[in-house]
Amino acid sequence: MATQVIVLNGGSSSGKSGIVRCLQAELPDPWPVAAIDAFVDALPASLRASNAGIEFAEDGGVTVGPEFRRLEAAWREGVAAMVRAGARVIVDDVFLGGPASQESWRKALTDLDVLWVGVRCEGTVAEAREIARGDRPRGMAAAQAETVHRGVAYDLEVDTTHTESLTCARTIAAHLT
Amino acid sequence: MATQVIVLNGGSSSGKSGIVRCLQAELPDPWPVAAIDAFVDALPASLRASNAGIEFAEDGGVTVGPEFRRLEAAWREGVAAMVRAGARVIVDDVFLGGPASQESWRKALTDLDVLWVGVRCEGTVAEAREIARGDRPRGMAAAQAETVHRGVAYDLEVDTTHTESLTCARTIAAHLT
Amino acid sequence: MATQVIVLNGGSSSGKSGIVRCLQAELPDPWPVAAIDAFVDALPASLRASNAGIEFAEDGGVTVGPEFRRLEAAWREGVAAMVRAGARVIVDDVFLGGPASQESWRKALTDLDVLWVGVRCEGTVAEAREIARGDRPRGMAAAQAETVHRGVAYDLEVDTTHTESLTCARTIAAHLT
Amino acid sequence: MATQVIVLNGGSSSGKSGIVRCLQAELPDPWPVAAIDAFVDALPASLRASNAGIEFAEDGGVTVGPEFRRLEAAWREGVAAMVRAGARVIVDDVFLGGPASQESWRKALTDLDVLWVGVRCEGTVAEAREIARGDRPRGMAAAQAETVHRGVAYDLEVDTTHTESLTCARTIAAHLT
Repeated sequence: MATQVIVLNGGSSSGKSGIVRCLQAELPDPWPVAAIDAFVDALPASLRASNAGIEFAEDGGVTVGPEFRRLEAAWREGVAAMVRAGARVIVDDVFLGGPASQESWRKALTDLDVLWVGVRCEGTVAEAREIARGDRPRGMAAAQAETVHRGVAYDLEVDTTHTESLTCARTIAAHLT
Repeated sequence: MATQVIVLNGGSSSGKSGIVRCLQAELPDPWPVAAIDAFVDALPASLRASNAGIEFAEDGGVTVGPEFRRLEAAWREGVAAMVRAGARVIVDDVFLGGPASQESWRKALTDLDVLWVGVRCEGTVAEAREIARGDRPRGMAAAQAETVHRGVAYDLEVDTTHTESLTCARTIAAHLT
Repeated sequence: MATQVIVLNGGSSSGKSGIVRCLQAELPDPWPVAAIDAFVDALPASLRASNAGIEFAEDGGVTVGPEFRRLEAAWREGVAAMVRAGARVIVDDVFLGGPASQESWRKALTDLDVLWVGVRCEGTVAEAREIARGDRPRGMAAAQAETVHRGVAYDLEVDTTHTESLTCARTIAAHLT
Repeated sequence: MATQVIVLNGGSSSGKSGIVRCLQAELPDPWPVAAIDAFVDALPASLRASNAGIEFAEDGGVTVGPEFRRLEAAWREGVAAMVRAGARVIVDDVFLGGPASQESWRKALTDLDVLWVGVRCEGTVAEAREIARGDRPRGMAAAQAETVHRGVAYDLEVDTTHTESLTCARTIAAHLT
């Protein structure tokens, strides 16, 4: 069966968005992206920086509250339904909960053909790129570099530390069925 | 039963996004937005400006191809599933197909409690705002101001020509059940 | 002598940027804009939110420190030199210091032909637009609506409360010499 | 005498902006950036994509007309005046005219202490990054990778092909006097 969903998991500034754009440019079929960042942008401003929603601390830490979790679960169901309706989708997420996040996706994507991809980047390099992009709180990259992968199982891992996004995307594309 | 979906339909530069942000600020519950603009941004770049995808002509015309339509239909199913999973959602759309667009949403949102809202703005004013914002092809506002509403049925219409987005949002909020 | 500089002064969310884009679209000559927002974006991130730089408080207050002032003065000299070198320039500023800000510009623009324009917007309307745009700290619009005009002398004032940016721009354009 | 201006020259997607943000983060003094991209954004929309202004062709070519050149020259004078007024400034430019562009800057920056830095990146890598960022016309990176450096003299060259922006920035910072 053909791959229906590519789930990319990686820390902040690990290069996921770049890989998504390269995948979209390389793959013959049109794959829309469902990115956690876009989901957060779709929320009311009040839900960002609140205990019920999602909070980005100055040291790069991220905490999510019950309302955020509830809506995030609904968003996952929405992504799954979009795939069941015929779209092939790339998910661009940060598994803040590690294996629990993967389990949530696994349940939502039941019966769908998923390629699980870990996007790694050495903490110091991700941190340097965080400074270079300048639009993320300092510290997120380092804080997430290892933790988001702990206990997560992948079909494939790519590493942007010494490899360009385009090359990583081609490696992923070669694994699609 | 409580309103589960607010569907806003209006032409380019009619003020929908502003109303969405005001609704999100005013409503006690968190309502994520599902905007057609964000959906287009989630597509591969190649699908924009292609016959299969969506094309923005220099005169402000917009044409969509078969691949775009197919993915848009899947997106609507995704939005509906997100609502069925418990999220209350604001849809921010431009009914390029008029009543056919509404019919597509109606099918996707079957059994859900929907508030249909028309967002109007006089063509000349929308055109002036299009110049002021400077990030849209000139001509879209004028081309869409009337056509997107033709044959569409609403529970409520608001008009941003002489009324601020916040006031329009409060009118909409007062109609929620 | 022909007008060489248009200085727009107005509070946050009063509609200055929209007027700038309309002026640029309406005027036959190309007028680049020198906007305080772009100047702030050109500063190191560390200078934002620091005592030495510029701080945006959660209540909408803005405070600037000595380093910011020093660089801002240099920026004004740069704008003046650009005009002396032959460019006609629109300045888009917020006179946080009221008449003192105007005096600083007056010194920098000595011997140049300047049109001083006040861009007004009723506080409650500016506040509503601040919510609608969603990218500014709540409270800035209300805090600045009156204060930035106090003691400032204009050649012309426009008011966006009930008038579109394009109409305001045309009024300004008609005053150019 | 202390370095007053750092001029970075490099092709599209060579990594200049990332280096600028890292320099701003690393240097103890606040260095505002004067970027050609920000200058282009400050121009009327009509001057982009016109024979008199600047045109970005679909194949990545860039052509500039007489009005653009005239305003660009005024902008350079403005940057120089800002430095003479006491600001230390990083210039982020693309020498489309090669040595002629450098000569123009040299004249504008007469008597100032300038550090000339070439930012190199192998064409194929810059091209891959252009796809990954997704906000530039395809082809610019490859077209400019070599040509913008031809005949230009530097105090220092950095290469982002295999070196992170932060490391390049630190190399540059070490050369400041």
